[in-house]
Amino acid sequence: RINAGRLLESLEALGRFGALPGGGTNRLALSDADRAARDWTVDRMRALDMTVRVDAIGNVFASYAGTEQRAPVLTGSHIDTVRTGGLYDGNYGVLAGLEVVATLREAGLRTHRPIEVAFFTNEEGARFQPDMLGSLVAVGGLPLAEALATRGIDGATVGEELQRIGYAGQAPVGAPQVDSFIELHIEQGPVLHQQGVDIGVVEGVQGICWLEFTLEGCSNHAGTTPMALRRDAGLVAARITAFAHELALRYGGRQLATVGAVELRPNLVNVIAQRAVMTVDLRNTDGAALARAEAEMLGFATRCAAEHGVVLGHRRLARFDPVAFDPALVELVAQEAQELGLSTLRLPSGAGHDAQMLARVCPSAMIFVPSVDGLSHNPGEHTEAHHLVQGAQVLLQVITRLANR
Amino acid sequence: RINAGRLLESLEALGRFGALPGGGTNRLALSDADRAARDWTVDRMRALDMTVRVDAIGNVFASYAGTEQRAPVLTGSHIDTVRTGGLYDGNYGVLAGLEVVATLREAGLRTHRPIEVAFFTNEEGARFQPDMLGSLVAVGGLPLAEALATRGIDGATVGEELQRIGYAGQAPVGAPQVDSFIELHIEQGPVLHQQGVDIGVVEGVQGICWLEFTLEGCSNHAGTTPMALRRDAGLVAARITAFAHELALRYGGRQLATVGAVELRPNLVNVIAQRAVMTVDLRNTDGAALARAEAEMLGFATRCAAEHGVVLGHRRLARFDPVAFDPALVELVAQEAQELGLSTLRLPSGAGHDAQMLARVCPSAMIFVPSVDGLSHNPGEHTEAHHLVQGAQVLLQVITRLANR
Ligand SMILES: NC(=O)NCCC(=O)O
Ligand SMILES: NC(=O)NCCC(=O)O
Repeated sequence: RINAGRLLESLEALGRFGALPGGGTNRLALSDADRAARDWTVDRMRALDMTVRVDAIGNVFASYAGTEQRAPVLTGSHIDTVRTGGLYDGNYGVLAGLEVVATLREAGLRTHRPIEVAFFTNEEGARFQPDMLGSLVAVGGLPLAEALATRGIDGATVGEELQRIGYAGQAPVGAPQVDSFIELHIEQGPVLHQQGVDIGVVEGVQGICWLEFTLEGCSNHAGTTPMALRRDAGLVAARITAFAHELALRYGGRQLATVGAVELRPNLVNVIAQRAVMTVDLRNTDGAALARAEAEMLGFATRCAAEHGVVLGHRRLARFDPVAFDPALVELVAQEAQELGLSTLRLPSGAGHDAQMLARVCPSAMIFVPSVDGLSHNPGEHTEAHHLVQGAQVLLQVITRLANR
Repeated sequence: RINAGRLLESLEALGRFGALPGGGTNRLALSDADRAARDWTVDRMRALDMTVRVDAIGNVFASYAGTEQRAPVLTGSHIDTVRTGGLYDGNYGVLAGLEVVATLREAGLRTHRPIEVAFFTNEEGARFQPDMLGSLVAVGGLPLAEALATRGIDGATVGEELQRIGYAGQAPVGAPQVDSFIELHIEQGPVLHQQGVDIGVVEGVQGICWLEFTLEGCSNHAGTTPMALRRDAGLVAARITAFAHELALRYGGRQLATVGAVELRPNLVNVIAQRAVMTVDLRNTDGAALARAEAEMLGFATRCAAEHGVVLGHRRLARFDPVAFDPALVELVAQEAQELGLSTLRLPSGAGHDAQMLARVCPSAMIFVPSVDGLSHNPGEHTEAHHLVQGAQVLLQVITRLANR
């Protein structure tokens, strides 16, 4: 059995890096806070006698040797957070993986296969797009050079920041030779909490589309420019935002749409905005519906910009189709949870996760625990201690089962 | 006759302070660029043997003595600009005033009354609200202490910044004992240019209402939070923006509405905005209609925020009723322009101006010259050289007429 106190303490300890005054963390990928959190986590890996390697995109893998030289079972997640992050998103999966190793090590146990615990670079996608950047590069889904050249919201590139914080590693990137991948994570949504279920058996991840619109209008005087003569980039951004919301309601079901970031220029009370840069986050479990939503968004933005004499530019910041996890591995998660006497529910993941990238190269699945009120990307993100412990226990069972196959 | 070359050169010279790479200026009130521009302008005043005084809110007055000890005729404007400002807004009125003095001085002429040329602090209102802050304090419309404590968009106060740049002057504020005020300015709107008129005879200034809305929602995950459970501050900001636009179109006539500034927090692609702070700029020549527009905006914002579970806070950043200028002075402007053979048009001002504050304490009026394409608060702001020269000539005629009364 895993050590509950040690697991919970480790979550508190890691939460200190980038801690926000009122609770929660601001630990954008490759920031100073991320560097400090990485250093602390690597120390913890070494203290478990694990062999640590860092790859060229800054993903960190720690290996606990098995009794045989076979492909390892991989677990882990990420330790970067958004600006208004909680203590559990990502961190939990990494620290629970290390707790599994600590438990086996304390009991003097080794599995047949090695067990590896990883944390991947820039899973959040809050600073650099796309999200899941590190795991995407690891599985060969994005060329390393392109990933290193990616510019973040503050203008720095991934490559520069990896060098700066000392995590431009030596290990080559490329499809890791692993037996399977299992990721433990908080749900981040309200379903398990609302339904009073202990363990979410994650069947897959919904599709993700991130668009960036750049709107070029004309700055002019708010008090002298007749409404009909305006080319107001801010107004077009607002109408696109309202449209995204209406689109999600109209599609219904699992369609989501969010405009989380908007920047106006010059951003002054009495100046019509010359420029607006904004993001649109679209998600759907149905890949075809997501593609239609994307096309509709682009069509509306094009028409709306033209109607207001504003020039539209657009980029896809991320685009991932829905992913289905390995049915046998999903079934194993359900069985192990049930054997521990826990209630389970099969559900898709709303958030993107590194497991959806690993699924391209090996059987992969995820275990969810409930998020109180479905709150995440919020300093108030919370999961009850007993759920955190239960999830880690399920992870231990699944990993030992896989690693002894 | 005024010296055209000298006037145009002085506009170029003052435009160098806070110059933007592609033309235009960024010279927010009490910034380093504003300090440098103030120093340069004060040097120019002293070079004309004018007596310079700086008051406690940083307004600068330069006096050219008359032959009698009587209340002076005051002219001037402002030299602060927005972030995307041109070379003429405000600067033109100050430098043309100095050109009038230079012309009289060169000709060895003195009027009966002294002539004073002023530039007022923070006319734009882009950094500190309200706009026309310096002239408002000068006429007793805002207590000095309140003005000094005003916090700008970057968090600094007017008082701190006046101290920092060395313009917290000794002269007391309070209704200046002046005979009359006449302000020369570019129109900033399209009317004179479109109609091919030389000189705008400004009958008054429309009403201004600046609102700030602070929207407190709840940050949450863009991929996991069902649409119905969101409290999206960014969406409410967008709907308020769209409503402001619709309101202006519905009211028609001279109703304007602009959302120029919006800030989201945490402002990230996959995080529902926890907080939005936005401004709404409403203007109307009809004071009653403006009051209705303000009430409607507030009503909509209140309903929309409530509908989305978002908490609304609001402040009035500025609120000025329409102002009518002194009919006799307005008539004098028209006569002097016509005597010079220039075409004239009576019109209201769309922008706020220091003259609307001075109008509270003395007969006041304004002279407009055409703005090419009505562009202002834009680096491309332009007025033809011959119009700039004509406007200054009208100013010379009006000032000498007033100062010899
Ligand atoms: N787990 C998580 O919050 N991932 C961030 C990527 C996303 O926006 O879904
Ligand atoms: N002249 C001018 O641009 N004044 C700024 C105040 C306003 O927004 O009208």
